[in-house]
Amino acid sequence: MTITPDFIPARETDAEPTAVAAALAEIAAAIGDAHVVIGDGGEFRDPFQPIEWDAFATAGVAQPGSTADVQEIVRIAGAHGVPVWAQGQGRNNGYGGAAPRLSGGITINFRRMNRVLELDPDLGVALIEPGASFQDIYDAIEAADAGLMVSVPDLGWGSMGGNQQDNGLTYLPYGKGWRNICGLEVVTADGELLRTGMGAMADNASWNLYPRSLGPTIEPLFFQGNLGVVTKLGLWLMPKPEVITHVHVDVARDEDLIPLVDILRRLRLDGTIDGVPCILNTLLIASTIAPRAHWYEPAEGVIPDAVIDEIAATIGIGRWHLRFALYGDRAVNEHNLRKALDAFGAIPDVRIRHTTTGPEEWASLPDPSDRVYAGVPNLDWNTMAGWRGGEHGGHMSFAPVAPLSGRQVYDLQMWLKARFEQGGLDHTADLIVVNERSLCSVAGITFDIDDEQATAGAYRTMQELVREAGAIGYGEYRAHLHFMDLAQEQYGWGDHAYRRFVERIKDAVDPRGILSPGRHGIWPAALRR
Amino acid sequence: MTITPDFIPARETDAEPTAVAAALAEIAAAIGDAHVVIGDGGEFRDPFQPIEWDAFATAGVAQPGSTADVQEIVRIAGAHGVPVWAQGQGRNNGYGGAAPRLSGGITINFRRMNRVLELDPDLGVALIEPGASFQDIYDAIEAADAGLMVSVPDLGWGSMGGNQQDNGLTYLPYGKGWRNICGLEVVTADGELLRTGMGAMADNASWNLYPRSLGPTIEPLFFQGNLGVVTKLGLWLMPKPEVITHVHVDVARDEDLIPLVDILRRLRLDGTIDGVPCILNTLLIASTIAPRAHWYEPAEGVIPDAVIDEIAATIGIGRWHLRFALYGDRAVNEHNLRKALDAFGAIPDVRIRHTTTGPEEWASLPDPSDRVYAGVPNLDWNTMAGWRGGEHGGHMSFAPVAPLSGRQVYDLQMWLKARFEQGGLDHTADLIVVNERSLCSVAGITFDIDDEQATAGAYRTMQELVREAGAIGYGEYRAHLHFMDLAQEQYGWGDHAYRRFVERIKDAVDPRGILSPGRHGIWPAALRR
Repeated sequence: MTITPDFIPARETDAEPTAVAAALAEIAAAIGDAHVVIGDGGEFRDPFQPIEWDAFATAGVAQPGSTADVQEIVRIAGAHGVPVWAQGQGRNNGYGGAAPRLSGGITINFRRMNRVLELDPDLGVALIEPGASFQDIYDAIEAADAGLMVSVPDLGWGSMGGNQQDNGLTYLPYGKGWRNICGLEVVTADGELLRTGMGAMADNASWNLYPRSLGPTIEPLFFQGNLGVVTKLGLWLMPKPEVITHVHVDVARDEDLIPLVDILRRLRLDGTIDGVPCILNTLLIASTIAPRAHWYEPAEGVIPDAVIDEIAATIGIGRWHLRFALYGDRAVNEHNLRKALDAFGAIPDVRIRHTTTGPEEWASLPDPSDRVYAGVPNLDWNTMAGWRGGEHGGHMSFAPVAPLSGRQVYDLQMWLKARFEQGGLDHTADLIVVNERSLCSVAGITFDIDDEQATAGAYRTMQELVREAGAIGYGEYRAHLHFMDLAQEQYGWGDHAYRRFVERIKDAVDPRGILSPGRHGIWPAALRR
Repeated sequence: MTITPDFIPARETDAEPTAVAAALAEIAAAIGDAHVVIGDGGEFRDPFQPIEWDAFATAGVAQPGSTADVQEIVRIAGAHGVPVWAQGQGRNNGYGGAAPRLSGGITINFRRMNRVLELDPDLGVALIEPGASFQDIYDAIEAADAGLMVSVPDLGWGSMGGNQQDNGLTYLPYGKGWRNICGLEVVTADGELLRTGMGAMADNASWNLYPRSLGPTIEPLFFQGNLGVVTKLGLWLMPKPEVITHVHVDVARDEDLIPLVDILRRLRLDGTIDGVPCILNTLLIASTIAPRAHWYEPAEGVIPDAVIDEIAATIGIGRWHLRFALYGDRAVNEHNLRKALDAFGAIPDVRIRHTTTGPEEWASLPDPSDRVYAGVPNLDWNTMAGWRGGEHGGHMSFAPVAPLSGRQVYDLQMWLKARFEQGGLDHTADLIVVNERSLCSVAGITFDIDDEQATAGAYRTMQELVREAGAIGYGEYRAHLHFMDLAQEQYGWGDHAYRRFVERIKDAVDPRGILSPGRHGIWPAALRR
């Protein structure tokens, strides 16, 4: 009884419904009835999928309370040949939310395992459970008065564990190049336990301090992977600096993106700017303030350039808006701020504002984005999702990686804008500068999920974008459930040498293929097409 | 005709000598006679193994000139069932040099593939071949006047590729937590090619700029691994700062190591000190200046504490000597230097010296260690190897990982000193502070390789150390050929869950088990015991 449109690559597990029901019953007996949901409970789904569609649907959700529970769940599911789909809080919104790639299996959701198990203020490290949200971690740090900061993303309700396992981007210095996580505990497909790095040795105090193994380092296999279920994570936390200087740079014209990016690259390479800056376009900023209808009345067509300029003027921003923060001693921040002001000041008509604050002020900074850069989780920017449809607004992200080079970034954005507009979509852009040399160009496709036709159109445009961008050398850093196979398909160098190599590993460590089948385009042998 | 002592875990390949000879002949026909050495040529061995011993002996050395050559070598070796052992320059001294773990196979040595293929001064990135030495890379950067620095280790003759694939430590900021390498090209066991990260997509310009994949990140599998032969590496290069401030801190007493480490940790965590500082003991410094006999006449016994104090006084250092460098704008360096002077100045009787220099001065800095921290490769500290035996001096490193916590570091060093002295060995220590939270405690065991009995004694002591340290939670970050199995054996958590997981991967991607069998204790199925 599939009512999902044909073009959606929905897939069902081969496991018989009776086997799935039996597994769920056994799991309920093992971890407690109260911790098993039959079906998606109206909650463990993609919140941005039209309610009528039945793609990416779980048969039931198990919420373990301990590592031993996870082992039980994996063993029971394995014994019945039922696939599991592991997540953190289940807030992977924009990429499929709480839904699994393969329908009909069992979701492992970690909302009950949300504790900060250990916190060492001297070494700046915590040991956390996979469901601990950014808010949970922030609260634990503040309660302990540990003088540390957690690197957070725009929305603080997700889990650090889930976010990082999706290569999720966070904005503080430890977000740069993913320096947050060190040391994992993992349940493997046979229900046994594995610890990475120094954790492979009993009583080794460096498990969460030193990131490699003796022998090959396997830890990054569990990021965007389906080779194990992570049950504990070491988390590095940065000491609070004396001050944070928040800087916002607005440039007037699209072409100004070229010097903006090139100057930013130089200031990152020479160490003036650390952390993960973002460059947002006018419509992205507008979407954090109010829905589309507030800015532009006609529901049809795309917002014309002249109106975008008006919106920018109303908000008091430019066509592109760079935000970043400096973290350090006051004297060093002043020096680095001066350098940044001099460098960006050379762009014609640029506007720059900055504020410098100490730890006592961070929780009450008026700009939610400044709070994010100060490590204070919040949900203010969730407004974004309501660009079209308000409460029923949905969004998906198209997120290719690009070199941090002005000309290339500009050309890519102009190409994306044209392609979005061709598909009848407003082009919103959030360029997340993940390290000194590259960025993830996140373009948000927004739609009213009550409008099935518009939603289908948005999906179709995105499908074309993944393929067309892949053909010119731009690949996604992270893919929506809907586009995982297609996005992986673009990585075809050497006759898909990467995918074939990973598939060999998959078959070797999960021979029954029960762990998160299809995640980022990696399927077990029996389900490969 | 084995004349290696019994206690050495030497192993021979199962391949018949005729098969090995046939493979070498075919390889010579494919890549040129001039590029194949039969036997070790007196050179491709462990230079610190007594010449009479025949452990860890290669049957022949192939020196490819291109990726295609490497593919040919791997295919031919595979067809004959002959194992290969891949290296860079073959300078893994202290850990087995150019020798393979398994005797009787074919060594792939990359001295001919030593080019810098691409160099982008704007993005601070190069594409290098696996045999490019630190000196080759430095020379290429200077020739191009690229304004960049390569992170180097104490001795500049090794290759960046070989060093990094052994998790080798280098001292500049990009050495911290191994940020040097981004993007690999790899020959797999079937002779095909694989590219990691964004390189898995054709024409993706972010291959050497963005470090992860879509899907699980496999790149770190090839560091300390035996799952492929790396033929190209992306290399990140740091822009030259305005100035470098070299700082040397001497503390008088062993106990002073406690505040020294704790202060260093705080200054690293708060960002005052970047890069990879080292803490060296008196005898390690002495060994960089002159052989043991220069400092202490009796060849027997260990150097007494009173003499160590005299040596320290003669050199003008303390019992422990910290070296690090600050990289940045002059004003920022001055601020950070003041902070460091204040913090370390609180240790009683501490002595601190510092110098600040600009790029023009770095190549001619008088202290070779300062040149290393300025990214200028040299060989001056090679004197170290001659502590005992002069030209025939040998050394091995025992290198466990430890938390960057004063008390733990002190206790470990005192334990090591006692155990060294019990084995009749001088305790030399080089604590390499690889990140903000941990260090690699490298203890050099030195011996005269002409003195077989002393060498055997040194090996035995080290064997005991690996086992005893493992029992109290200290594991090696990198192991000598001789101790690879034993060091890996210590990582026994979960009934060796880590090793078993890696073995599954090994068998899946290299089913014939031909790539570097036994590297860091990972053997193919047919050779597991």
